[in-house]
Amino acid sequence: MSRTDGREQNQLRAIEIITDYITHPEGSVLISVGNTKVICSATIEDRVPPFMRGGGKGWITAEYSMLPRATEKRTMRESTKGKVTGRTMEIQRLIGRALRSIVELDKIGEKTIWIDCDVIQADGGTRTASITGAFVAMVLAFQKLVEAKKIASLPVTDFLAATSVGVMKDGQALLDLNYIEDSTAQVDMNVIMTGGLDLVELQGTGEEATFTRKQLNELLDLSEEGILHVIEEQKKALGTLAQSIIDRGKGEN
Amino acid sequence: MSRTDGREQNQLRAIEIITDYITHPEGSVLISVGNTKVICSATIEDRVPPFMRGGGKGWITAEYSMLPRATEKRTMRESTKGKVTGRTMEIQRLIGRALRSIVELDKIGEKTIWIDCDVIQADGGTRTASITGAFVAMVLAFQKLVEAKKIASLPVTDFLAATSVGVMKDGQALLDLNYIEDSTAQVDMNVIMTGGLDLVELQGTGEEATFTRKQLNELLDLSEEGILHVIEEQKKALGTLAQSIIDRGKGEN
Amino acid sequence: MSRTDGREQNQLRAIEIITDYITHPEGSVLISVGNTKVICSATIEDRVPPFMRGGGKGWITAEYSMLPRATEKRTMRESTKGKVTGRTMEIQRLIGRALRSIVELDKIGEKTIWIDCDVIQADGGTRTASITGAFVAMVLAFQKLVEAKKIASLPVTDFLAATSVGVMKDGQALLDLNYIEDSTAQVDMNVIMTGGLDLVELQGTGEEATFTRKQLNELLDLSEEGILHVIEEQKKALGTLAQSIIDRGKGEN
Amino acid sequence: MSRTDGREQNQLRAIEIITDYITHPEGSVLISVGNTKVICSATIEDRVPPFMRGGGKGWITAEYSMLPRATEKRTMRESTKGKVTGRTMEIQRLIGRALRSIVELDKIGEKTIWIDCDVIQADGGTRTASITGAFVAMVLAFQKLVEAKKIASLPVTDFLAATSVGVMKDGQALLDLNYIEDSTAQVDMNVIMTGGLDLVELQGTGEEATFTRKQLNELLDLSEEGILHVIEEQKKALGTLAQSIIDRGKGEN
Amino acid sequence: MSRTDGREQNQLRAIEIITDYITHPEGSVLISVGNTKVICSATIEDRVPPFMRGGGKGWITAEYSMLPRATEKRTMRESTKGKVTGRTMEIQRLIGRALRSIVELDKIGEKTIWIDCDVIQADGGTRTASITGAFVAMVLAFQKLVEAKKIASLPVTDFLAATSVGVMKDGQALLDLNYIEDSTAQVDMNVIMTGGLDLVELQGTGEEATFTRKQLNELLDLSEEGILHVIEEQKKALGTLAQSIIDRGKGEN
Amino acid sequence: MSRTDGREQNQLRAIEIITDYITHPEGSVLISVGNTKVICSATIEDRVPPFMRGGGKGWITAEYSMLPRATEKRTMRESTKGKVTGRTMEIQRLIGRALRSIVELDKIGEKTIWIDCDVIQADGGTRTASITGAFVAMVLAFQKLVEAKKIASLPVTDFLAATSVGVMKDGQALLDLNYIEDSTAQVDMNVIMTGGLDLVELQGTGEEATFTRKQLNELLDLSEEGILHVIEEQKKALGTLAQSIIDRGKGEN
Repeated sequence: MSRTDGREQNQLRAIEIITDYITHPEGSVLISVGNTKVICSATIEDRVPPFMRGGGKGWITAEYSMLPRATEKRTMRESTKGKVTGRTMEIQRLIGRALRSIVELDKIGEKTIWIDCDVIQADGGTRTASITGAFVAMVLAFQKLVEAKKIASLPVTDFLAATSVGVMKDGQALLDLNYIEDSTAQVDMNVIMTGGLDLVELQGTGEEATFTRKQLNELLDLSEEGILHVIEEQKKALGTLAQSIIDRGKGEN
Repeated sequence: MSRTDGREQNQLRAIEIITDYITHPEGSVLISVGNTKVICSATIEDRVPPFMRGGGKGWITAEYSMLPRATEKRTMRESTKGKVTGRTMEIQRLIGRALRSIVELDKIGEKTIWIDCDVIQADGGTRTASITGAFVAMVLAFQKLVEAKKIASLPVTDFLAATSVGVMKDGQALLDLNYIEDSTAQVDMNVIMTGGLDLVELQGTGEEATFTRKQLNELLDLSEEGILHVIEEQKKALGTLAQSIIDRGKGEN
Repeated sequence: MSRTDGREQNQLRAIEIITDYITHPEGSVLISVGNTKVICSATIEDRVPPFMRGGGKGWITAEYSMLPRATEKRTMRESTKGKVTGRTMEIQRLIGRALRSIVELDKIGEKTIWIDCDVIQADGGTRTASITGAFVAMVLAFQKLVEAKKIASLPVTDFLAATSVGVMKDGQALLDLNYIEDSTAQVDMNVIMTGGLDLVELQGTGEEATFTRKQLNELLDLSEEGILHVIEEQKKALGTLAQSIIDRGKGEN
Repeated sequence: MSRTDGREQNQLRAIEIITDYITHPEGSVLISVGNTKVICSATIEDRVPPFMRGGGKGWITAEYSMLPRATEKRTMRESTKGKVTGRTMEIQRLIGRALRSIVELDKIGEKTIWIDCDVIQADGGTRTASITGAFVAMVLAFQKLVEAKKIASLPVTDFLAATSVGVMKDGQALLDLNYIEDSTAQVDMNVIMTGGLDLVELQGTGEEATFTRKQLNELLDLSEEGILHVIEEQKKALGTLAQSIIDRGKGEN
Repeated sequence: MSRTDGREQNQLRAIEIITDYITHPEGSVLISVGNTKVICSATIEDRVPPFMRGGGKGWITAEYSMLPRATEKRTMRESTKGKVTGRTMEIQRLIGRALRSIVELDKIGEKTIWIDCDVIQADGGTRTASITGAFVAMVLAFQKLVEAKKIASLPVTDFLAATSVGVMKDGQALLDLNYIEDSTAQVDMNVIMTGGLDLVELQGTGEEATFTRKQLNELLDLSEEGILHVIEEQKKALGTLAQSIIDRGKGEN
Repeated sequence: MSRTDGREQNQLRAIEIITDYITHPEGSVLISVGNTKVICSATIEDRVPPFMRGGGKGWITAEYSMLPRATEKRTMRESTKGKVTGRTMEIQRLIGRALRSIVELDKIGEKTIWIDCDVIQADGGTRTASITGAFVAMVLAFQKLVEAKKIASLPVTDFLAATSVGVMKDGQALLDLNYIEDSTAQVDMNVIMTGGLDLVELQGTGEEATFTRKQLNELLDLSEEGILHVIEEQKKALGTLAQSIIDRGKGEN
């Protein structure tokens, strides 16, 4: 079965990462993964949440939202509803947790890095695009701290990127699902990995279906292939900053 | 006193209106007024709010929001707070009311036009940029209805645009305040006018200050000058669609 | 066209201001403007909101509400809804801003003046009656501070009063709209002025209509006439306190 | 020990009930019990809550609120808090339940009577004053239904009034506690009775204290005495309407 | 008329109190009164609410909830609704107030005792079972403080227990109503008493009905009989701890 | 390194499943996994949520909560906070999704199965215990439908159970983490599988750490071993009902 947009089974959509997309944040990007577009920004705040005060370590937290017409049908604003949905909370917690896995929080002091991912156009994979873009925005923000001599070097141990994979009704495993594929897939998996292809987070779900360990391995193979390509795009976007992360990744893994 | 960005007292900032900026909405634009950038989209829903049902008329309503880092300092999300601020509500009501003044609601049937204005970068004048951009997005959405033969012609009686004016501490009246000017102005006024320079909404406020009728007239003169220029940009963005509005404006004023 | 209640086009409704209407607040009035009745009270609190602390200046903030049966049809309580409507927020912000324009906030130290306007009967013009009444309640509260020798003199630079004006479907401009007039007016304007007839706030709105600068001037002429009469009633209510404000107004304008 | 306001142990404060105090509601009163003042209004709505639909019976529900400066120290609005306090809910439920005990709900059809009690000045006993006033406002509203020939006669089986009693630290039982007495009483009891002195609701509370059955009886004796006086005031306020209730009370008890 | 479960008019349902039912709280019980089952726990926190700070006294506060399927028909969670109902608030306030009446708050220092009553199965009388169980859980928690030598002795002046009584349509007075009896009773009364049979709280309600003082006395006689039995069960559950409370009760009443 | 409670690396804690633990729900259990105890109940409602109406299929949804003192330190109630936390939402969504994967929703008609999981004591693994217990409660509820001849047979295609696994700081992989192990683990994974050991959901997370595919496989091996034991306990609890599920599982996998 051929894919709706003509891609190969193991082919990512086109990725574009525009850095410094908006002027106020310490770091920001507009990331496009096919028709999915997310503005990611990183803000540095000089304090940590109450539960971390006095510990000398930093913290990373994330917020995620979609413009009402990022979607085909208009979605009601969460501010109008007066509450954040479960889906949004899940994604926010995921982004923050993933970024914390590759940052040396004890090297930044009591600072909070706020990550904001605002989806302006959605076509599947908004959470994985958010993580991929947020990593770049965060590195740019850390570089500001380095330049201001507030920290000695980038406190990032490795690259971090995410992609989605899935199993379709005909049993075929696909890389980087778009919205139509995502809504008809039987198994849907989000994979977050480092530059060294270590796993950071794995969320596989059978929606009214199940999957075998053999299928799991097939999906992970596809993910590794995809994530290596995604990280190539992050490297392009980060330019010379990429090298110091590459060096770190080598030394530590 | 010269302006922080070197403009003349009666000079607008550069305006850019990119149409069809995002793919899902019936109409959308990215409007830039200097460093202020707003994504405006128009959604057509085939029903009206309960209080209007059965009346045979349409309705226009607006929602406004800012990304957390649209601002110099990060602003907490209203969805996180669990409520919409008074400032946001004021702006939302203003946008909807203004657009309703130049649309023939009885010609569109029981439809709601949802306007979403999402500020991605703020440097003063976000509400006036929102109105100017929303007008264009709305016309594009109406054109879709015309093309689908759901309505006979654009139900828009005239152009609609907005700008801000203000009086500085030294008494000088300025057109199109940027953020620094806005925060130090003694009098702040938002003016919404039609292509025929009729007033649609006038909101003048002395913040811990007052103003005279002479100053009011000076501000209105500046506004008229500015709004004519803003409408020129709307015409460019709308291309051939502009002509039918011009024709309507002529006939009816 | 004659008015529903037989008034002249430039005639206010009867105004009555009963001072010290309730016993607990530092200042309070019951103001009646025709059938519109509002209890206004002023409370002095010995601290300012967080964003003003340490600045040595005072603050004025207002809250506005209507009893459920102040209106012809019962209105649901905002406490029951669990949120304050946009209309209420707009009015609250307007009242606070207007009062701050004629008070020397740096002369009262870090105190907050809480203004509460509770409409017990509504027949149009509740926000303008609230401002007119709140001014008197606030002066009474300041006088308590003077008597307690906490401030040297009334920190009020001038009188402050408000009225509404509007343009009817037949083009006629009217002063002080009652509820029926207000709901059928094409243009609705709220005007807040000082005793010296300087403008403090001007909010003119065409509801599905527009207005010209000529009409604007006609409305402002009517407003000036009306506000002078409203201030006469404030003077009667304030008795001897009025003179010190008159003296201030003279000296500073 | 003599009372702070010089009353006898079994003496009520002065009661005044002004009928038709505001113009919009079907029935309304301003009730004063000493310095406690409450506006009570009754609204008739032509439907019942979902859980009662189709049963052919009516319903009575109540809402209670205090103006922020009804109290000595300003109380934050429940609309600002975004929720109704437990105390308010208790009082609302009490008022509704009490009124339902003396109304023939099956004679009014599927209508809801909304009772609104808004305290404009508080000096103890606001819930009992609310019930006493609400009864009169409700009867006035029912009379409107009789006059409009929507019901045949007043659907009220008896008078209903309330008062508070308490035991002070010295063991003395007092009738109709004012605020100072109420805040120092060891036992606080609210008693609601009919014209025939049947009990409708009895709420006795020892706050960090207990009471004996002997004290309970002493408090009930005081309450009976007080309630007979309160009902005299209701009769004066209701004028000729009182007689038909008296006749009902006679016939049915 | 015989009772649905065959009990005598003055017969309680079987009571079982399992102490230390869950491991984390300082004190906990599972209390069963017939088919009504409540987990009560007592938590000791080393601070008091803001309004009590600096007074040197302790505080007791309670929260009450029902599992969704504690009831015959599933009840929506209050966390899902986003607010606590009036019924819950009433019960919470009642439990806290009752417990405070028999505890020497000045002997525990600035500590808060949090009482949590979670109904896992409901068959009438959940609030009275909660109070009876909460008393035992609280004593167990205080004993922990005694053992840790944080207080010298149990700060409890007497036993505290609750029961419900009611008048049925046929005029019969019943002790300890189950759900079916409770929903058809004309008069419903909750009575809270000490070991010395002093009244702590009395809440009698005619739901669309009234009651006489003679009936009140009959209900109180039944309550006294019931509460003595309930306290016997508390004594069994508390074992040797019961004696020190008995001694206190003797000495002080 | 030996485990805090002396278990082997691949040893589950003791599991007990008490069926029909509370009387009102269609199905209920109390499940204990070591010191973790959860009441799971299943409610059958004769309608589906709006988004599913008319499709002829059923729906399964879950709610999860913890009693305040299920935890070592008291946790504030979500009803008191007025909102459900992100953690709760994640767990609720997970439970519902997992159960839907092994139920033939098209065989139960437009019914909703509400699953309530209320943790009364927590010691790690509350979400996996909830899923394991909820499966049993749901089967019991379906059996009620079979007995009432509303459905022909159990619409369950296989068993469903969950467990947690993790990697400790010393690199050791452990099965069924208790609270202390869970809070110090570097990698934490929840695994949900069917009786045929197909994967339903896999959520692996490195908290400030990463993991390799080799470690992933080690964790999955441990999970399979554990889940087979958990399902043995479900079979014991379900008694004769288990056989029909076993038969289904055989036929379909």
